[in-house]
Amino acid sequence: MPRAFTDQEKAIIRERLLEQGRAFLTSYGVRRTSVEDLTRAAGISKGAFYAFFSSKEELFFTVFEQFEAAYRQELLSMAQRAEGPPREHLRAFLRHAITRWRASPLFTRMGREEYDIVARKLPPERLRAHLEDDEAFVARLIDQWRAAGVEVASSPAELTGLIRALFFVSLHAEEFGSASYDATIALLIELIADHLLRPAA
Amino acid sequence: MPRAFTDQEKAIIRERLLEQGRAFLTSYGVRRTSVEDLTRAAGISKGAFYAFFSSKEELFFTVFEQFEAAYRQELLSMAQRAEGPPREHLRAFLRHAITRWRASPLFTRMGREEYDIVARKLPPERLRAHLEDDEAFVARLIDQWRAAGVEVASSPAELTGLIRALFFVSLHAEEFGSASYDATIALLIELIADHLLRPAA
Repeated sequence: MPRAFTDQEKAIIRERLLEQGRAFLTSYGVRRTSVEDLTRAAGISKGAFYAFFSSKEELFFTVFEQFEAAYRQELLSMAQRAEGPPREHLRAFLRHAITRWRASPLFTRMGREEYDIVARKLPPERLRAHLEDDEAFVARLIDQWRAAGVEVASSPAELTGLIRALFFVSLHAEEFGSASYDATIALLIELIADHLLRPAA
Repeated sequence: MPRAFTDQEKAIIRERLLEQGRAFLTSYGVRRTSVEDLTRAAGISKGAFYAFFSSKEELFFTVFEQFEAAYRQELLSMAQRAEGPPREHLRAFLRHAITRWRASPLFTRMGREEYDIVARKLPPERLRAHLEDDEAFVARLIDQWRAAGVEVASSPAELTGLIRALFFVSLHAEEFGSASYDATIALLIELIADHLLRPAA
């Protein structure tokens, strides 16, 4: 019978598993990584894994959430600085939000299909809480902008929907064919930025 | 050795295969339908199939193109009538284009995954020609609108990109979470309709 881990050991092992999760996700993806790959790399037994995460999917979702937290922090700082005239700032912000996300190794590996695999195995409450989180984050963004003098007229729900729409469009970049993805996303961003700054009704 | 089909027989059999293709696509989808299912239902031998289509994927793509042709015809007629003030017409048109597509049994069965399966097996020229076709169709729409007094300021390439973006957003309707898909797509349609009617620079 192995001895129980101390709290400090637990924290270290958890961090080590997440680190391996990031590495395996980037190199192999969710499907080609097993619980055993992760525990072997982290130097623990396969059985001990379940003291930390209920499945490899939960571990990968945690990796995803950690990346997202850093990404959100970066966006909040950008909104806080609010450089340039409001319209230019909002356009640059939306462009950055989309391109930064698409450029991350996590995004490249965590495409639609892998996200679906992970989402299906998660407890529904966890996924729901995550989606509700988005709107709370967007509400903080709007507050940050107002504090910086950028008067955004949209509600958090409306802006969350618009940002989500831009993300969904960006998922299909390769399918724009003769129409150009770059020109289309730039135009949508302009239309949305102008809308956000419309005079309040 | 079976005798060759006459041209008239060929036309009848081809139509019968397409009819079975529509029925099987709606009831079972691409993956759960085999060439044998189609030939048995159409009353021909499995070998004879290849005198008509190079693969079941090519048959399904033809079914898809036939549906699309009818759908485009309906949209062109709507643009020709151009009922109501231009802004209202364009909003109603874009709403109809998206909801009509999403409501068709073909769309429901021919989701992203099935479309990908079919697209992968097609000769690349055929898929390319199909994508270029979209822009030619949008050019006809713009002409139709101008003839009806609706002055659309966008190029066919720009409008094709915008319509494609709306379709991609609609593919993710279920994933809007707390933000509402309906409200978001309605707002995007308003922004796009206003943009289409902006005074030419």
